[in-house]
Amino acid sequence: MKKKSKTTHRTVSGGSDVVLNEVTLLAKRAKAAGAALALMDSKTKNNALLSMAAALREAKSAILSANEKDVEAATKAGETKAFIDRLTLTGSRIDAMAESLNEMARFDDPVGEVLREWTRPNGLKIRQIRVPMGVIGMIYESRPNVTVEAAGLCLKAGSAVILRGGSDAFHSNSLLVDVISEAAREMKIPDGTIQLLPPQDRRSITVLSQLTGLVDMIVARGSEEMIKSVTAQATVPVLGHGKGVCHVYIDKSADVKKAVNIAFNAKVQRPGVCNAMETLLVHESVMYDVLPPLAEKYLKAGVEMRGDERVTGLLSHATAASPLDWKTEYLDKIISIKVVGSLEEAIAHINEYGSGHTESIVTGDPKAADLFQKAVDASCVMVNASTRLHDGSVFGFGAEIGISTQKLHARGVMGLRELLTTKYLVDGDGHIRE
Amino acid sequence: MKKKSKTTHRTVSGGSDVVLNEVTLLAKRAKAAGAALALMDSKTKNNALLSMAAALREAKSAILSANEKDVEAATKAGETKAFIDRLTLTGSRIDAMAESLNEMARFDDPVGEVLREWTRPNGLKIRQIRVPMGVIGMIYESRPNVTVEAAGLCLKAGSAVILRGGSDAFHSNSLLVDVISEAAREMKIPDGTIQLLPPQDRRSITVLSQLTGLVDMIVARGSEEMIKSVTAQATVPVLGHGKGVCHVYIDKSADVKKAVNIAFNAKVQRPGVCNAMETLLVHESVMYDVLPPLAEKYLKAGVEMRGDERVTGLLSHATAASPLDWKTEYLDKIISIKVVGSLEEAIAHINEYGSGHTESIVTGDPKAADLFQKAVDASCVMVNASTRLHDGSVFGFGAEIGISTQKLHARGVMGLRELLTTKYLVDGDGHIRE
Repeated sequence: MKKKSKTTHRTVSGGSDVVLNEVTLLAKRAKAAGAALALMDSKTKNNALLSMAAALREAKSAILSANEKDVEAATKAGETKAFIDRLTLTGSRIDAMAESLNEMARFDDPVGEVLREWTRPNGLKIRQIRVPMGVIGMIYESRPNVTVEAAGLCLKAGSAVILRGGSDAFHSNSLLVDVISEAAREMKIPDGTIQLLPPQDRRSITVLSQLTGLVDMIVARGSEEMIKSVTAQATVPVLGHGKGVCHVYIDKSADVKKAVNIAFNAKVQRPGVCNAMETLLVHESVMYDVLPPLAEKYLKAGVEMRGDERVTGLLSHATAASPLDWKTEYLDKIISIKVVGSLEEAIAHINEYGSGHTESIVTGDPKAADLFQKAVDASCVMVNASTRLHDGSVFGFGAEIGISTQKLHARGVMGLRELLTTKYLVDGDGHIRE
Repeated sequence: MKKKSKTTHRTVSGGSDVVLNEVTLLAKRAKAAGAALALMDSKTKNNALLSMAAALREAKSAILSANEKDVEAATKAGETKAFIDRLTLTGSRIDAMAESLNEMARFDDPVGEVLREWTRPNGLKIRQIRVPMGVIGMIYESRPNVTVEAAGLCLKAGSAVILRGGSDAFHSNSLLVDVISEAAREMKIPDGTIQLLPPQDRRSITVLSQLTGLVDMIVARGSEEMIKSVTAQATVPVLGHGKGVCHVYIDKSADVKKAVNIAFNAKVQRPGVCNAMETLLVHESVMYDVLPPLAEKYLKAGVEMRGDERVTGLLSHATAASPLDWKTEYLDKIISIKVVGSLEEAIAHINEYGSGHTESIVTGDPKAADLFQKAVDASCVMVNASTRLHDGSVFGFGAEIGISTQKLHARGVMGLRELLTTKYLVDGDGHIRE
């Protein structure tokens, strides 16, 4: 393990003025680091990423020991099994973190990418290019892998990052940040590029998210509740993962086999994530073909079915859905099923109850597909595909920082590019305004 | 004049519950209208714009009478000459408004524009396209021309708009909205696409800007103070015009004639706007060549000069600048001038005191130009051009809704495209997640 950094930890404690001062100091360092980092070439950044990856593997046993402390404390505190699982690091998880940094080194550098360029009749040359954001605040829960991934992505995106992970992962995160920031520093990445905000004081989140002028963007990753709370108090713009009340609609012209496969996959392949289906809509003319074989598969997979009257009439294992069911993100092996009389009714239901995340139609009719894709107001609208495919790796983005249901800046799956902003470059030759 | 619409005015008055209910009702109508409008083709929208333009010209005398009431009241209330000027309509100003609608009809329709498309190895086809925002709230001051321009732009962008103009322009705005919304309705544009929020109750701004789920974006146009107040209370994302503390930096390798022309134009051509220069930075090695001839021109144009010690030592008419001067947006014939020892010092000054709006370097050295464009953190960074050229019409955008200094969603001059969001369309053939 490399020598311990003296600068990555700053204790935030005492009165709120103290918190304000400490976090501000940290952000000022980040701002200076971000300004310097923005000028660095791709090679330097990529070498740093590779070096960070190597350092992680080297420090594996120390990281595992630090993580053990966190896991022990969380176990004593009676945290859930799922929570402990997300918190726990293993040798292969550390390898995966290192591999993700190596992969980022292979990504194209988005900094400087030209979005548009044109020349005006007066000879003025205008370009719109991607440039680093500056300072990104990353607020997340007790998943140590996010620490490394976020630091790597922000570095590749040319921005300094201030990490604020869950308090339960503090020993793990501290050591991870020590290891990677030291490795980055040795590859000439500016001091202050990767910093960790100690989690002892919850006010530090408030302060961080209100440092307009020093912090350019907050990325909030975690539960809906956490993101809401961050957004509510932030004055700095927040990019957050959106909740997914996703639908699959099986149209009257659907291929029954594809429909059953997609509806099964969308619910069962990984029920606990935002792009899993929560509600299935079925056109009345295909309900007798689709629902019985599908219900059999659901039953075998342990999926609880809740439906409207026609569904409970048809499927003996289905119970009656309550009005609340149509807007619930179960994140579990539960599904609500509704029979609709038309494509339009399906679209209206989705626009009323959906969360604008991922919606899919199974149909053989290109006109129905087109109307569905146009009229459904969501970040991703699919035809003949499982909602589970709305994903960074499936899309080929390599890295994912979540899926946004916001309409400004980033909508849908967010990759590296969403961590950047743009700038207009104008080149003249003495041009003035007449 | 066409018949008066019964639906464009809804009185907002009484307790805040009443305001909430009234504004919510209006927003629900807008949401339904926006959903229908999003499906309409370019031709229908363009025909509506042309028809709105014709209706404005037809109703000219009625509009002028309505405007007279507003102007009289504002005059009685002792408003400034500049305020009255912005409020006043004339025959030719109404023609210009109509012409701007005709021009919008000729713009390319941004709805459906494909930003990226690719096919994954598994055959999944992915497109990212531009789609309408849905409902846009437009909050602005007493400039009736903004009413028409905003309505036209939002219609072209495929979104419903809720207009909230300054109370002093209410008679003008009411009639303008009646005229254009009726003309649009006759061309099959959905009811509720263009609505005006009566300004009697200031709480309506708060309510409108907090209608998450019904209103997708607020565009705030007006004074810095107004935009700050809207942003502070809004939960819906706000797109606002940014303040401009813009600089011109004259580098040591600058062509003196170009430098003098650009620095003069940037300050004097229209001092009251955001992209006018406020502070001039001059490299010490060219100060003797550049400043005397430039100061003579400024003096003739009535520009008050404030400078650092070297400037006041050189220019007899310059007074000493206070620390406050370096961060002031004068919006007037006042300039602050500072001599710097290097390009790096100029960049540091700009990043410290600038507002991230528009910054320009005058230089003959491509390396200096490149470093300046990379290192200066602003929405638009120019080389050998006047800051006044950061403008929608100069850029060829046709329409402008302001210049943003934010880093998310829209940075720099905002045109039609910034009023849209994006959506991923995914086309599969029974694709599921393995």
